[in-house]
Amino acid sequence: MPMVNIEVIKDVFTPSQKRDLIEKVTEAMVSVEGEALRGVTWVRVQEYEQGDWAIGGKTLSAGDVHALAKGKAA
Amino acid sequence: MPMVNIEVIKDVFTPSQKRDLIEKVTEAMVSVEGEALRGVTWVRVQEYEQGDWAIGGKTLSAGDVHALAKGKAA
Amino acid sequence: MPMVNIEVIKDVFTPSQKRDLIEKVTEAMVSVEGEALRGVTWVRVQEYEQGDWAIGGKTLSAGDVHALAKGKAA
Amino acid sequence: MPMVNIEVIKDVFTPSQKRDLIEKVTEAMVSVEGEALRGVTWVRVQEYEQGDWAIGGKTLSAGDVHALAKGKAA
Amino acid sequence: MPMVNIEVIKDVFTPSQKRDLIEKVTEAMVSVEGEALRGVTWVRVQEYEQGDWAIGGKTLSAGDVHALAKGKAA
Amino acid sequence: MPMVNIEVIKDVFTPSQKRDLIEKVTEAMVSVEGEALRGVTWVRVQEYEQGDWAIGGKTLSAGDVHALAKGKAA
Repeated sequence: MPMVNIEVIKDVFTPSQKRDLIEKVTEAMVSVEGEALRGVTWVRVQEYEQGDWAIGGKTLSAGDVHALAKGKAA
Repeated sequence: MPMVNIEVIKDVFTPSQKRDLIEKVTEAMVSVEGEALRGVTWVRVQEYEQGDWAIGGKTLSAGDVHALAKGKAA
Repeated sequence: MPMVNIEVIKDVFTPSQKRDLIEKVTEAMVSVEGEALRGVTWVRVQEYEQGDWAIGGKTLSAGDVHALAKGKAA
Repeated sequence: MPMVNIEVIKDVFTPSQKRDLIEKVTEAMVSVEGEALRGVTWVRVQEYEQGDWAIGGKTLSAGDVHALAKGKAA
Repeated sequence: MPMVNIEVIKDVFTPSQKRDLIEKVTEAMVSVEGEALRGVTWVRVQEYEQGDWAIGGKTLSAGDVHALAKGKAA
Repeated sequence: MPMVNIEVIKDVFTPSQKRDLIEKVTEAMVSVEGEALRGVTWVRVQEYEQGDWAIGGKTLSAGDVHALAKGKAA
């Protein structure tokens, strides 16, 4: 039953990082709910176009998030 | 930026398990995206009423999911 | 794989009508996708509180929708 | 009022099948809610990129779903 | 066509503030899209239970948000 | 905390109009919740492909919505 949606800005994560997110979040779910529910645990990634996601009215690009991830102000 | 929604059926998980889900899924996200993005990582739980979630047309109660978690057919 | 979300205002439909919605929408999905996908066809109902759903800025109660369903202006 | 979201993996369904899903799900809704609500019944299809939807941590391609639809293991 | 979802934590806003949010967001939409689309502009509020919404793994209560709104650390 | 999702059909709005929607909806939110919450007010635009959004079973193109916006029947 559990359905998990991971919403991110496009091009922030590489395909390999997205697979990583899916695997690690699935394991996190299964560690709480139990192994028997793994087969009904759905995890999805949904990407928003750059410029379509804003914090406090300021839209973010993938570059802004990468700068933030390196500890610089967005 | 990342926003994670964990959708479950009501009364499948206790409040303490829901806190656990939130913490473990947050850690899973941070382990991929990096510590600097923790402060903009939002994780939410959304509960659906029992009887409002169906697989193959068959609605599920919390009891059905608990039985499934114990390895019995729902 | 398909996940269908049916979003409605609370108390517009009875529990029996909600079960009906779930069954009929599931059948509609299976009629297109094929019987083999029935087991991975998830259908959910999500209810919004009365007063939390607006059209053109005017919030709707269940009574408004019932009046509309009888062919009267909301 | 009712809003129905049909979430699928990209390229599983052809454009013509997607139109079919929309029409059949709309008819399913109207058969329960009554003809007078047809005009406020919104139905949408939302597609997820292949590789962005996982069951039990295993991502699905359109090909996986097509194999499943033919009764083969994904 | 536009559908706007306003997602908040329960009991952060009073019913009167929620009506206000709906009205002001509707006007914001209509100011860009034009008056002719007002009748197909749907705006909804969806509330999450206190404790079901976390930032950086820390769940928020309505009180936390009220403190934040007054300029105190959550 | 508040998260606002603005869902529209692709190519109905120009990039500049989408930025406008984000800014005006953010201001509408802040005018009710207070300036101190601006930094945790997230607003996103999500676009649906033309043909993937139907009203009463009739799918809409961007052209249909533009005609509607000019006061013509869709």
